[in-house]
Amino acid sequence: MRIGVIGAGQLGRMLALAGFPLALGFRFLDARADSPGGQIAPIVTGAFDDPDCIARLSAACDVVTYEFENVPVTALAQIPASVPCHPPLEALRVSQDRLYEKELFGRLGIATPSFRAVDTLAELETAASAIGLPAVLKTRRLGYDGRGQRYLHRTADLAPAFAALGGVPLILEGFVRFDREVSIVGARSTKGEIRVYPLAENVHGDGILRTTRAPLNRPALQRAAERHLKRLFGHFGYAGVLTIEFFVQRGRLVANEMAPRVHNSGHWTIEGAATSQFENHLRAILGWPLGSTRALGHAAMVNLIGTMPDRDAVLALPGVHLHDYGKTPRPGRKLGHCTILAAAARDRDRLLRRVERCLRA
Amino acid sequence: MRIGVIGAGQLGRMLALAGFPLALGFRFLDARADSPGGQIAPIVTGAFDDPDCIARLSAACDVVTYEFENVPVTALAQIPASVPCHPPLEALRVSQDRLYEKELFGRLGIATPSFRAVDTLAELETAASAIGLPAVLKTRRLGYDGRGQRYLHRTADLAPAFAALGGVPLILEGFVRFDREVSIVGARSTKGEIRVYPLAENVHGDGILRTTRAPLNRPALQRAAERHLKRLFGHFGYAGVLTIEFFVQRGRLVANEMAPRVHNSGHWTIEGAATSQFENHLRAILGWPLGSTRALGHAAMVNLIGTMPDRDAVLALPGVHLHDYGKTPRPGRKLGHCTILAAAARDRDRLLRRVERCLRA
Repeated sequence: MRIGVIGAGQLGRMLALAGFPLALGFRFLDARADSPGGQIAPIVTGAFDDPDCIARLSAACDVVTYEFENVPVTALAQIPASVPCHPPLEALRVSQDRLYEKELFGRLGIATPSFRAVDTLAELETAASAIGLPAVLKTRRLGYDGRGQRYLHRTADLAPAFAALGGVPLILEGFVRFDREVSIVGARSTKGEIRVYPLAENVHGDGILRTTRAPLNRPALQRAAERHLKRLFGHFGYAGVLTIEFFVQRGRLVANEMAPRVHNSGHWTIEGAATSQFENHLRAILGWPLGSTRALGHAAMVNLIGTMPDRDAVLALPGVHLHDYGKTPRPGRKLGHCTILAAAARDRDRLLRRVERCLRA
Repeated sequence: MRIGVIGAGQLGRMLALAGFPLALGFRFLDARADSPGGQIAPIVTGAFDDPDCIARLSAACDVVTYEFENVPVTALAQIPASVPCHPPLEALRVSQDRLYEKELFGRLGIATPSFRAVDTLAELETAASAIGLPAVLKTRRLGYDGRGQRYLHRTADLAPAFAALGGVPLILEGFVRFDREVSIVGARSTKGEIRVYPLAENVHGDGILRTTRAPLNRPALQRAAERHLKRLFGHFGYAGVLTIEFFVQRGRLVANEMAPRVHNSGHWTIEGAATSQFENHLRAILGWPLGSTRALGHAAMVNLIGTMPDRDAVLALPGVHLHDYGKTPRPGRKLGHCTILAAAARDRDRLLRRVERCLRA
C-alpha cells in the first residue's frame, strides 16, 4: 500500500515516519528533491498544480493526501477518481480562505471573532467602525505563521495597513483579548470512526507557534471543542486529521482557524499520546481502526525556529526528544521540535524551561 | 551524518526509523534490495564479505554498525580505519562462537551452564558423562532462533544428535531447569556513558522468542544483570547496544548468550521506554549523550511469526502498536511485532492475551 503526499515538508516526513512501521510506502510531490520528505522517500519534483506531476503521483499511489493547506484545489481536482484523496477538497477550499472558514463556523454554531470582508480602503473604514478597534487586518488567502496580518490599534493605522496588504481580498477581524490559545486535533476515518486528542494549549510569538502543552485538563472546554470538531467532520464528510485553533476568552471558545491536516500543535502526540496524530491520519484515510488518543503523561512541544540548539545539551535532558527535520537553517524557519514527556505537569514545565534555556544559549 | 548498517533486516530498519527524526541518513548492505531496511533507505546489494560492497558502504558513511551477529568478522576488518565501526569487532567475534562466549563469561565471573567443547562423538560421550544429562548439544557458530540445537535426554540420544549436527565445532551445555528467562539490554557510548534498561522477561517457543514483558521489577536481579553487562562493556571497550540473555535459576542469573546489537527482547522500548534501544544505539555509536532508559509503564512485545494477524483486529486494541517489517510471510519467519503499553501490569497482561487471541484467529 502506497500513500501519495502532496507537499514534502516536515508534516509529510512525519507522516512517512509514522507509516513505515505499518509497512506503508510513500511518495511525495514537492518542488525540491531535498525537502524533508524527499530525504526519506521517493519524490516527484515539480509544482503542486502541474498536471503531469499530479498524474505521476496518483499513478504510483493507492491513496493521496496533502500536508499543506495552500495546495491549489484545482491540483487535487486532477487526481483520477480511481485514487481516493483525503481530506475532502471542500475542507481544503474552505480552509484556504479566512472568510469562507469563518462563515462556515458561523453556520455551524461555532463562535468566531466579529469579521467583515474588505476589498477597498472604504470597506476597511466601514468594517473598522462596525467591529471597533483594535482589530486585525488579514489577507483572506495564503497567510500562515503570522504572515499577511496587520494589527490596527487606531484609525491612523488603517490606510498604511491597507497599503501594505491590499490588492488581494482581505478580512477584518475583531481583536480577541484571549486568556489562552488552544487547539483541538482529531481524526475521522473513512468508516466514520472518530477519535479526538486532549486539548492542547499553545503559545505563539511573532505569529509562529512556539510551544504547546498538553493535555489541558478543562473538561467543559474539551467537550465544546469536540462538539465543534464533530460538526465540521459531519459537514465535510471528513476523513483524516482535522485541527481547529481557538482563543479562550472568559472560559469560552472562539474559533480562529481550522487546518485540514496534521498540525504543529499535535506534534506532542508522537511521544505523548498512545497513537500519534500522524499514525491516526494514515489509519483514517485508509479506513483502518483509529488508535487511542489517550495522553501518556504531561507533554510539551517546543518549536526549533531559525537556528538549532546545541544538540548534546538537548539530548542530555531526560525525557526530551529531538526531531530535526533536516532543513537548512534560515531565520523564522521551523527546523525541528523537541517533545517533553513527564509523569507530572510540574516536571514537564521544569523540563520545558530547561529546553527553552538551550534555545537561548 | 550518514550511518552504514551491515544487514538490512528488521533491526536495521528500526535503527533507521529511530535515526530519521535525528536527521541521520542511512545506507544498508544486504543481499536483497527489497529487504526491510532497503525498503526505506538506499542499499548496497551484495554479500556481507564482498570487499567491493564493504568499500562502497564505507565510502558513503560516517560510521558503520551491524545488525546481525553472523556478519563475517573479516568483512568488518576491511572497513577503512577512517570510518569508525561499532560495536567492536572483538565483541562480534566472541558472540559468534558459543564456546568463546561462555569462556569469556567465566573469566568475567558471569555464571553459565556447565559446558564442554565437542568435536567428535567420543568427546561428546566424555562431555555428557562430565556434565550429566539432560544436556543440549549446539553448534558453536551460526545458530540462532533455536537452529543447530539438539536436546539430549538419555545416552541413546548422543549418536543421532552428533550425526545431525557434527562435522562442525559443537558445544555441549548442561540443561538449565530455569524459573524464567530474562534479558538485559544496555548501551555504552564512545564517550563511556552507560544506560541500562529494566530487565525484560522472555518466553520462547520452538527456540524463537515469542513474548517479552518489561519491566521485571526484581531489584537484586537488575543489579546483578547490570554488573555483568558493565563487565562486558569494560572488557570490550564497547560502544553501542549490548544484550545478555539469562536463565533465572533459583533466584540466580545464569548467562545463556550475548548479542552485540539491538535485540528482539528490546523492541518493547520503542513505545515502552523514554528512549528506544534503537535511538540509544545510534546515540552511543555517535558519541552523543544517551537517552533515559526509564520504562513508561508496563510493556509487552509479541512477535508475529510466519503469518500476520488480522490487521484491523490488532489495530482496534487500545494501546497496541503494530510493527510490520514489510516481509513476505514464510513459516517461522519474524514478520513483525506488536507492542503493548499499559499503566498497570494487569492491564498489560490482559491486552497481551487479546493480542495472542488475534494471532490464533
